[in-house]
Amino acid sequence: MGKILVMYDTQSDRKFTSTVVPLIEEGIAQVGGMEVRAKFVDDCTPQDVFWADGIALGCPTHLGGISWRMKKWWDDNTPNVWMKTDGKLGVAFTSSGSRGGGGELTCLALNVMMMNCGYMCFGITDYIAKKESLHYGAVVAGEPREEFAKESCRRVGRRLAEWVAVIVDGRPECHPLKATYPRFPRDY
Amino acid sequence: MGKILVMYDTQSDRKFTSTVVPLIEEGIAQVGGMEVRAKFVDDCTPQDVFWADGIALGCPTHLGGISWRMKKWWDDNTPNVWMKTDGKLGVAFTSSGSRGGGGELTCLALNVMMMNCGYMCFGITDYIAKKESLHYGAVVAGEPREEFAKESCRRVGRRLAEWVAVIVDGRPECHPLKATYPRFPRDY
Amino acid sequence: MGKILVMYDTQSDRKFTSTVVPLIEEGIAQVGGMEVRAKFVDDCTPQDVFWADGIALGCPTHLGGISWRMKKWWDDNTPNVWMKTDGKLGVAFTSSGSRGGGGELTCLALNVMMMNCGYMCFGITDYIAKKESLHYGAVVAGEPREEFAKESCRRVGRRLAEWVAVIVDGRPECHPLKATYPRFPRDY
Amino acid sequence: MGKILVMYDTQSDRKFTSTVVPLIEEGIAQVGGMEVRAKFVDDCTPQDVFWADGIALGCPTHLGGISWRMKKWWDDNTPNVWMKTDGKLGVAFTSSGSRGGGGELTCLALNVMMMNCGYMCFGITDYIAKKESLHYGAVVAGEPREEFAKESCRRVGRRLAEWVAVIVDGRPECHPLKATYPRFPRDY
Repeated sequence: MGKILVMYDTQSDRKFTSTVVPLIEEGIAQVGGMEVRAKFVDDCTPQDVFWADGIALGCPTHLGGISWRMKKWWDDNTPNVWMKTDGKLGVAFTSSGSRGGGGELTCLALNVMMMNCGYMCFGITDYIAKKESLHYGAVVAGEPREEFAKESCRRVGRRLAEWVAVIVDGRPECHPLKATYPRFPRDY
Repeated sequence: MGKILVMYDTQSDRKFTSTVVPLIEEGIAQVGGMEVRAKFVDDCTPQDVFWADGIALGCPTHLGGISWRMKKWWDDNTPNVWMKTDGKLGVAFTSSGSRGGGGELTCLALNVMMMNCGYMCFGITDYIAKKESLHYGAVVAGEPREEFAKESCRRVGRRLAEWVAVIVDGRPECHPLKATYPRFPRDY
Repeated sequence: MGKILVMYDTQSDRKFTSTVVPLIEEGIAQVGGMEVRAKFVDDCTPQDVFWADGIALGCPTHLGGISWRMKKWWDDNTPNVWMKTDGKLGVAFTSSGSRGGGGELTCLALNVMMMNCGYMCFGITDYIAKKESLHYGAVVAGEPREEFAKESCRRVGRRLAEWVAVIVDGRPECHPLKATYPRFPRDY
Repeated sequence: MGKILVMYDTQSDRKFTSTVVPLIEEGIAQVGGMEVRAKFVDDCTPQDVFWADGIALGCPTHLGGISWRMKKWWDDNTPNVWMKTDGKLGVAFTSSGSRGGGGELTCLALNVMMMNCGYMCFGITDYIAKKESLHYGAVVAGEPREEFAKESCRRVGRRLAEWVAVIVDGRPECHPLKATYPRFPRDY
C-alpha cells in the first residue's frame, strides 16, 4: 500500500491547514489505496520522510521562495535524510498572496530542494480549467475559493497518488495517460 | 530624452503585437518624455539595443521558458552585444497559455538572460488589483482582456520609463516611491 | 530492455558530440542492458522521444539558458509530444563557457522544460570528487578534460540508466542506494 | 558618499565571516569613496537596509537555495521593508559545498528575493580567469583559497561599488564599461 506524506508550512492563521491540505487529501483519495500522513512541518520527523513513497511539499510563497520554516526543516535535517531518499516521488504546492507574485518560483524552489535530496520531481501537464494549469505544482492565490483553485489542489494529490500507484504499487491502470477524467484544454 | 526599446516575439497570429505591446507603450507614455521603439524581434538589430537606455523584453511562454525565436536573437548576437550593454535597464513580460503555466518562470529566464548581458533587472513591487501582481514582470494568460491584465502591461512600461527617467534623465520626481497612483494592496 | 535517448545540441564545432556524449554512453553502459540512441537534436523525431523510457537532454549553456536550437525542437514539437510523455524519466547536462556562468541554470531550465512535458526529473545527489557534484545534471566548463568532469558526464548516463532499470525494467538491484561505487563525500 | 551593506549568513564555524566578507570589502575599497557596513544577518536591522544604497547579500548554499536564517530575516521583515527599498542596488554571493551543487541557483534565489523588494539586480559579465565567471553573483566552493575564487569575491564588491558610484554618487568615470582592469576572456 503506497504511502504519502503531505508536509506543509502554513500561514500564522493556519488557514492552509484547514483549506488546502484537505483538498490534497481528497485528490489522493480519488485514486485510493494509499496511506496518508498530513503534517505541519514542525511536527514532521525524518522517519515520516523515510516512511513515505511520495511527498507533497507545500508552503506559503514568501518573497518568491520557500518559507523559512520549511527551509529550516530541510536545512537542519540534511545530515539525517540526504542520500537516503533517492528515488522517492515529490510534488510541490504553494499559496501566494497574488497571481504573478512568486507562486511558480516557490514551486520550482521546492522542486530544486527535492532534487537535491534525490527525489523524482514531476510537473503536471493537465489544465484544470480554461487558462488554469499547475505545471510545476499547485499555485493558489490566497485561500482556494474558486472551483479551479480547489481542483488544482486536488489534482496535486491525485497525480502524486497515481505515480505512487504506478511506480511503487504496480498498478499500471492508474497511469495518468490512461485517465478518464478531463486533462486536456480541448475537453473544456 | 530617455530611450526605450520594446523588443518582442509574438505568437504566429501576431496578437501579441496588437494587444500587449500597445499597452506597454501606453504605460511608457504615462511617464512621458521618452523616445520609444517597439519592434518584433526579427526586426531588431544590435544598434536598437545599444540605442536604448532601457528594454522591455517579451515573448510568449513556451514550455516554461523563452520562445526559441527570442532566444536565437540573443544567442546569435552575443558576440555583438556582450560586454557593451552593462548598466542598461531591463524588464520582462510574457503571455502564457494558462495561469500556473510558466509565465513567472519565463519572466525569470528573460531576466537571467539580461543579467548575463549586464542589465539592471528589476521586479515590480506593486499590486495591480486584489491578488494580482507582477513581481518579475507582467504575466498575462492569453490576450489581456481583463482590466488587471491590461494594467499589468501598462505598469511594466510605466515602471521602466520611471527608472529610465530617474537614473538616466535625472528626473527624481519620477521615482516610484513618490508615485501618487495606487501601488499598495491596502489601496484596493 | 530499457531504452535511452541522448538528445543533444552542440557547439558549431561539434566538440560536444565527440567528447561529452560518448562519456554519457559509457555511463549508461556501466549499468548495462539498455538500448541507446544518441542523436543531434535536428536528427531527432517525436518517435525517438516516444521510443525512449528515459532521456538525457543536453545543450551548450547560452546566456544562462537553453540553446535556441534545442528550444526550437521542443517548441515546434509541443503539439506532437505534449500529453504523451508523462512519466518518462529525464535528466539534464550542459557545457558552459565558465564555472559560475550559467550551467546550473541551464540544467534547471532543461528540467523545467521536461516537467512541462510530464517527465520525472531527478537530480544526482552524488559527489564526483571533492567539491565536485552534479545535483541538477552534469555541468562541464568547456570540453571535459579533468577526470572529475569526465566522471560527471558518465554519472549522468549511469544514474539515468539505473532509474530506467529500476522503474521500467524491474531490476531493483540497480537502485542507486544499493550502489557499491563511491557516492558520498566521505568516500574521498 | 555611497553606502553599502554586506549582509551575510554564515556557516556555524563563521568561516564565511573571516574569509569571504573581507574580500568583498577589499573589492569595495578598490573603488573607494564608500561607507561600508558588514553585518551578520542576525545583527542587521531594517535601518541598515534603508541606510544602504546597495546591498551585497550572501549566504551558504543549502539544498540549492537560500539558508533558512537569511530567509527568515527577510520573511520576518517584509512588513517593515517592502515598498520602501525600490531602486536600491543588489548583488548576490554564496559559498557552496561543491561546484555544480547549487551555488548559481542560490544566487538566483537571492536575486529573486531582492527583485520582490524592488532592488535593481545585476549580474557580472566579467570573467575572473579562464573558465571562471560570476554571472549571477560570486559562487565559491568552500573557503576561497584559489586566486580566482578570491578575485570573484572582490569583483562582487567592486562591481556593486562601481554601480553605486555611477548611479547614486554621480561618478560616471567608475562605469564598468570604462574599466581599465581586465574583464574579458581575451585578456587572459
